Amino acid sequence: MSILIKNIVIGKEVKDLLIEGHLIKKIGYNIFASAEKIIDGSGKIAFPGFFNTHTHAAMTLLRGYSDDLPVLQWLQEKIWPFEAKLTEEDVYIGTKLACLEMIKTGTVFFNDMYWHFDGIVRAVTEMGIRAVVNSVVIDFNNPDNFKQQVPRILEEYEKSKDFPDTIQYAIGAHSIYVVSEYALGWIADFAQKHDITLHIHLSETEHEVDECMKFRNMRPVEYLDSTGFLENNVISAHSIWLDDHEIEILKKHKTTIAHIPTSNMKLSSGIFQYKKFTDYMEHVTIGTDGCASNNNLDMGEEMKFASCKAKMESKDPTMMDAETALKIATENGANAFGINGGKIEEGKLADLVLVNLNHHLMIPAHHHISNYVYSANSSVIDTTICNGKILMEDRTVPGEIEILKEAKDCIKNLLQK
Amino acid sequence: MSILIKNIVIGKEVKDLLIEGHLIKKIGYNIFASAEKIIDGSGKIAFPGFFNTHTHAAMTLLRGYSDDLPVLQWLQEKIWPFEAKLTEEDVYIGTKLACLEMIKTGTVFFNDMYWHFDGIVRAVTEMGIRAVVNSVVIDFNNPDNFKQQVPRILEEYEKSKDFPDTIQYAIGAHSIYVVSEYALGWIADFAQKHDITLHIHLSETEHEVDECMKFRNMRPVEYLDSTGFLENNVISAHSIWLDDHEIEILKKHKTTIAHIPTSNMKLSSGIFQYKKFTDYMEHVTIGTDGCASNNNLDMGEEMKFASCKAKMESKDPTMMDAETALKIATENGANAFGINGGKIEEGKLADLVLVNLNHHLMIPAHHHISNYVYSANSSVIDTTICNGKILMEDRTVPGEIEILKEAKDCIKNLLQK
Repeated sequence: MSILIKNIVIGKEVKDLLIEGHLIKKIGYNIFASAEKIIDGSGKIAFPGFFNTHTHAAMTLLRGYSDDLPVLQWLQEKIWPFEAKLTEEDVYIGTKLACLEMIKTGTVFFNDMYWHFDGIVRAVTEMGIRAVVNSVVIDFNNPDNFKQQVPRILEEYEKSKDFPDTIQYAIGAHSIYVVSEYALGWIADFAQKHDITLHIHLSETEHEVDECMKFRNMRPVEYLDSTGFLENNVISAHSIWLDDHEIEILKKHKTTIAHIPTSNMKLSSGIFQYKKFTDYMEHVTIGTDGCASNNNLDMGEEMKFASCKAKMESKDPTMMDAETALKIATENGANAFGINGGKIEEGKLADLVLVNLNHHLMIPAHHHISNYVYSANSSVIDTTICNGKILMEDRTVPGEIEILKEAKDCIKNLLQK
Repeated sequence: MSILIKNIVIGKEVKDLLIEGHLIKKIGYNIFASAEKIIDGSGKIAFPGFFNTHTHAAMTLLRGYSDDLPVLQWLQEKIWPFEAKLTEEDVYIGTKLACLEMIKTGTVFFNDMYWHFDGIVRAVTEMGIRAVVNSVVIDFNNPDNFKQQVPRILEEYEKSKDFPDTIQYAIGAHSIYVVSEYALGWIADFAQKHDITLHIHLSETEHEVDECMKFRNMRPVEYLDSTGFLENNVISAHSIWLDDHEIEILKKHKTTIAHIPTSNMKLSSGIFQYKKFTDYMEHVTIGTDGCASNNNLDMGEEMKFASCKAKMESKDPTMMDAETALKIATENGANAFGINGGKIEEGKLADLVLVNLNHHLMIPAHHHISNYVYSANSSVIDTTICNGKILMEDRTVPGEIEILKEAKDCIKNLLQK
């Protein structure tokens, strides 16, 4: 498939952009090329699509199911009992609902930690978005429990060899408090051998630090490092309650930080110390978390939260300027997974959005990126292209009415269970 | 004009709602009445429109003009020089652009502190939204300077007697650091005599407290109280850097707090201590501030920021639940200005929005208010009705293309000045 986008703002200039296959083939003035699809880009600007580096996509099904409770009560009385009912088919439907929302909000990639591997792969493949599907590990600190999960992990890893180009495999070890030391070591070795990305919730709450100190006499990052886990390409979600030594360890290993601004606020988890990562900004990315704690998957909104929080926490309004927020939400996420995307450049993957400059939230046009980060919401996004394929045009995603209906039916069923 | 809305969700039930003139006349099952306009409300929910209690509307013209700078540099080098160029016509155009954005984001009322009184009145009258137009006072602590402004204030006050029902008059004394003690006293007396609402920026920055202590040996609220200002109906914007005695003074006077969550974060001003106001929640309202520091006028987004900040600041995820956030952003704002609105009830003013329940951000429908506060953006708002008049239907505001064009032309002109 080839797509020629005419007269689109790229940076500060109006140009043409040619997509061939999965790639941005050419950017220039007055490109004359035959293309199967021509898009009139006038009055629009191209931005890279968003890379959401930490979510639990199918939790769209729990959007608004429970809020405003103390965290343990919220988990034990509401979230976990609901989740226990979910079948693979439910997760397939919930993930499609999530992909629909992501496409509508300009996201082209997500790193997903959730159960029912096959259901997720099926949904992602159908929806055409990029994703990292995780083998999830929770053994409640019982190595025997983990050993029983190994065949599943190996099986999922084998399946990943048949993944399309747009899907990657990772292992998602939930956290140091529900994954045994044995399992963390096994995962570290397996990942090293097979070059697998790892994904973990790390230092999300102060309680996690206290417990780790109590039982291991080490802080969480020190403990995780002792298992060899951090020798790999690791995505560390949250990463709030860190002391300077832990920050040093993460930087030494080039661990990717998935900063989760909104969920951290809504659950009162704590405040990410962005200022201490400004010299490491290239490895900071953004995730939305799942819809039970955010309650959406909107990376644009997440940019505004991230930037405003960085300014507030550091007492410095120059922190995380608009350009940096956009880079963190796009390019840095792509780089973390070795994906040749996240930038509008010749030779990069054609993962981009077209944003309507005639939308009231984009006017005046003093600074398009400022408007996109600080003023706009996702309704300014007109078109989403991923891997050279148009997933949304004129804000319409093929099949969206069916996906919404399926999700409603699924919920009705779940509530009757 | 009469409007009958059929089959609309109100609370947890599907009902009909009849508007006659400016008021909600009747809410019930199967209302049979002849109405000039019938709206099919099926698949929609009615919420009260938003009351934005602190903004500088015409600063839409400065959206994205300058961000991410140290506050003084931002003001002195960017914002003030640009503002100095604004004529009454520019403010008229900027205010119309603001009203357009407010209508599109479900706001039916705003309290505006900005120059060019007549331009603002003209814009607000045309757009049909409710507003409080302020006589703005800044005298740079020079009583002579203030005395020269008194005729203008009296003249504006006289003009306010001809305001339509939808517009109120107030005096906006900018702040204790650029309004003299003499002026604050004069304003306090004048307001007392004529029953005028007062509006002020109060304790927005730590610097303001330090300076007040240095020059007056009192904290800002103590000082303001000493002038008699707080004896009136006062809207105190920001109100961050307060000690317990100051909070007590504000509560004693039933001063309305205009909490400004996003701007306070973006400018690193500080964090509103919501927890200390939970027993005073009825008097807490929300404002967006102007578009130079937010950078939009979206009260829905502001609800999410307010609630997430309250949870973060208090380390308590039960703080400002979704219902409370909605009440703060609607009913409390109406009450602060003695407006019979902010609630969907018979006899209340017909100021309401219809929200699309089939929007992907409102699905699943576990909890409509949670979805509205935590998940949605303004694109879920289908219809905005103010004072019994439909200002937006199917997301379309009459004349919006012309308003956007006018704003673009105005900016082009200003940048050439």
